[in-house]
Amino acid sequence: EEVEDVLEPPMRERSHIDATLRLNEETKSDDYSATLQRLKKIYHTAVRPLEQAYKYNELRQYEITDGEITSKPMVLFLGPWSVGKSTMINYLLELTDSAHQLYTGAEPTTSEFTVIMHGEKTRSVEGIVMAADSARSFSPLEKFGQNFLEKLVGIEIPHKLLERVSFVDTPGIIENRKQQERGYPFNDVCQWFIDRADLIFVVFDPTKLDVGLELEMLFRQLKGRESQIRIILNKADSLATQELMRVYGALFWSLAPLINVTEPPRVYVSSFWPYEYNPETHKDLFLKEEISLLEDLNQVIENRLENKIAFIRQHAIRVRIHALLVDRYLQTFKDKMTFFSDAELVFNEIVEDPDKFYIFKSILAKTNVSKFDLPNREAYGDFFGINPIASFKLLSQQCSYMGGCLLEKIERAITHELPVLLESIGSGKNPTFPSCDTTGCGEKPKNRYKKN
Amino acid sequence: EEVEDVLEPPMRERSHIDATLRLNEETKSDDYSATLQRLKKIYHTAVRPLEQAYKYNELRQYEITDGEITSKPMVLFLGPWSVGKSTMINYLLELTDSAHQLYTGAEPTTSEFTVIMHGEKTRSVEGIVMAADSARSFSPLEKFGQNFLEKLVGIEIPHKLLERVSFVDTPGIIENRKQQERGYPFNDVCQWFIDRADLIFVVFDPTKLDVGLELEMLFRQLKGRESQIRIILNKADSLATQELMRVYGALFWSLAPLINVTEPPRVYVSSFWPYEYNPETHKDLFLKEEISLLEDLNQVIENRLENKIAFIRQHAIRVRIHALLVDRYLQTFKDKMTFFSDAELVFNEIVEDPDKFYIFKSILAKTNVSKFDLPNREAYGDFFGINPIASFKLLSQQCSYMGGCLLEKIERAITHELPVLLESIGSGKNPTFPSCDTTGCGEKPKNRYKKN
Repeated sequence: EEVEDVLEPPMRERSHIDATLRLNEETKSDDYSATLQRLKKIYHTAVRPLEQAYKYNELRQYEITDGEITSKPMVLFLGPWSVGKSTMINYLLELTDSAHQLYTGAEPTTSEFTVIMHGEKTRSVEGIVMAADSARSFSPLEKFGQNFLEKLVGIEIPHKLLERVSFVDTPGIIENRKQQERGYPFNDVCQWFIDRADLIFVVFDPTKLDVGLELEMLFRQLKGRESQIRIILNKADSLATQELMRVYGALFWSLAPLINVTEPPRVYVSSFWPYEYNPETHKDLFLKEEISLLEDLNQVIENRLENKIAFIRQHAIRVRIHALLVDRYLQTFKDKMTFFSDAELVFNEIVEDPDKFYIFKSILAKTNVSKFDLPNREAYGDFFGINPIASFKLLSQQCSYMGGCLLEKIERAITHELPVLLESIGSGKNPTFPSCDTTGCGEKPKNRYKKN
Repeated sequence: EEVEDVLEPPMRERSHIDATLRLNEETKSDDYSATLQRLKKIYHTAVRPLEQAYKYNELRQYEITDGEITSKPMVLFLGPWSVGKSTMINYLLELTDSAHQLYTGAEPTTSEFTVIMHGEKTRSVEGIVMAADSARSFSPLEKFGQNFLEKLVGIEIPHKLLERVSFVDTPGIIENRKQQERGYPFNDVCQWFIDRADLIFVVFDPTKLDVGLELEMLFRQLKGRESQIRIILNKADSLATQELMRVYGALFWSLAPLINVTEPPRVYVSSFWPYEYNPETHKDLFLKEEISLLEDLNQVIENRLENKIAFIRQHAIRVRIHALLVDRYLQTFKDKMTFFSDAELVFNEIVEDPDKFYIFKSILAKTNVSKFDLPNREAYGDFFGINPIASFKLLSQQCSYMGGCLLEKIERAITHELPVLLESIGSGKNPTFPSCDTTGCGEKPKNRYKKN
């Protein structure tokens, strides 16, 4: 299969990729989809009803589609232009020099958000088609407008790795370019992908390391997702070792003020392309680093169910808190209203100073809620502006003879059903399955990167 | 000369040390001492008189002894305990396993400030002796007390490298130790050496990288001396390359908040001891890094005269500004005094709010003074508390028929004599002698590390 070409260096051996990612082992798709079906059921019976009853989506603009529950882990590639993001994807998916390779080059070549996913045969899918198909988990992207959908492309490829993960290639960041030139909200789109990515590769080219304003902006957007970030110092074999060390140090130096965590990020130093490394360089290190990165990727694949369950559970925790808050607003409103009161005046007073009525404090005190999970109070001003308080019912009235109470159902999902589901896959796999520390299933944010 | 010992690894070849440091070339000591004599003369005739007339030493506690003018460049070794500072000095000076080697070990072994300097034969000099000898440039250390002098040791060794530089070994920093346990002001002593060092090696051990409060304190003391700092990640061959890279990155990550400059510091990754590197490690890199560090050291040796002249010139600039300020205080005082005024009340008013009388502004406006070189105004409150304003004479009265005016003399030294002296050695050496950019001879601080 190797391409004979005098202009290009010989290809590297790539069996370590298949081995590390276990691409030749069959995935236990039965267990996998059974668990996802169960997860979908819990979501629809225990979380969704409360979400709808208290219009959670209007607060967070974060809706969970079935496509999102069943979707594969997403690996997002970010970074300046021409650092080798598309080249890396081509390499991992054996697309280099094929008819369907992502276009690469020394100038900014990727102007689209490109979702690379599994398909029976290679074909591309237009953005408007992807957004229309709710099973694909990209339907929420429609809100960024038709201009953006023209910059969204899907590519289906029958590669084994894509049975396990999807890749998202992004336009390289160009310093000193104006936002409006793009015709769509680039940063908002990035944020959407960042919020959903299971792994975020931020790629750099050591020969043109330039941390400017656009990149600073990007790292502001990455805040809170530090444990998903992996930095890649690509094309590492294009520098002599001493020079590479300087650049490697300078990269940490530049990133330290941008990533506000105590522990340094994991930086992989390697050259992610199919060709032999430059002979005069530290080839051993680069191969080891590539394998370490693949192991990291494999971890995300192995833990995809755990992560998905933890994700739904975290969402459920937020929905419950929201419901408790709206209930408290409503109860306070009802308590304050007399026959002669002006409903609007009374409620405005509550919304403008919720602390006066202990709205948030009471939630913290009465239930097992972490203060880190409370939404900010300003958001509720807007929320009740759109959704009149009178349109909601108290939690105590959200019960039915057959179905029980919505609050009890979501609490049971959080404390019992989802943990049991998590345990079931843990025991089926191996004894050292990730604890709540790593999947973040606890209510308190346990981010090991948190500054203390 | 190699030691045969089954317990220790074989010795490394060390010809690169002699070659890089040009230890086998004779130093042109005639030119060297002639220039220093000329510098001493300029200092004594043009700077010293003004210094004394306006008691500059009482403001800055910074007196320049003849010993300091003629002293060799000083290389200061700082860092946590047991990182290999003494081992590195033993290595560079071929003391390893000799009778006079610095004591090294896995526990904190260096409890003294050890000055290693040239001598005709190997012998040690006690701290009280060093402090008493004004030709040695360490006499100002007496002010740190007798307890400290017991912790100050000199070692004279007839090594060629010590004809060019002196080394200062320091007690390793121990986190969580109380200042008073030492019995002398450790930080003040460190600061004294830091202020005078031509090169500051901050050494780290990659197997126990721990940046704690004591080290944070150290880097606060290093502020303003960023261009003298070189970080050394020592014992680099005790880790596998991937692990070393992690530690190397973590070091930059930890130092970034402590060193407030845009450019990362130069970090040398190597293993500074006489034995062969661990065979499984990146030996090429370590040797290259060692040579780079030696080149750095050689630069300091080559530029020692330039640096010394620049140092005296900077001092002269400060003395001149001080004299101008005292003169202005005095002039303002005289202008405000009437026959009926209370001298103390009048002067207190000036000292308490010098801006009201444009003391500092007038200095900036009338003469070619950079605002970065102005001392802080609070210091003058204390200064005039000890030195009554009436004890000074106006600058216009500091003139004599034969000697001219003190102000004119120092200004001539700053603008003419010292630059000419600098040029004379530059032309004698090679055409690319360091410009004012690197020696800092300009009045504006041109620190390339400055955050902008």
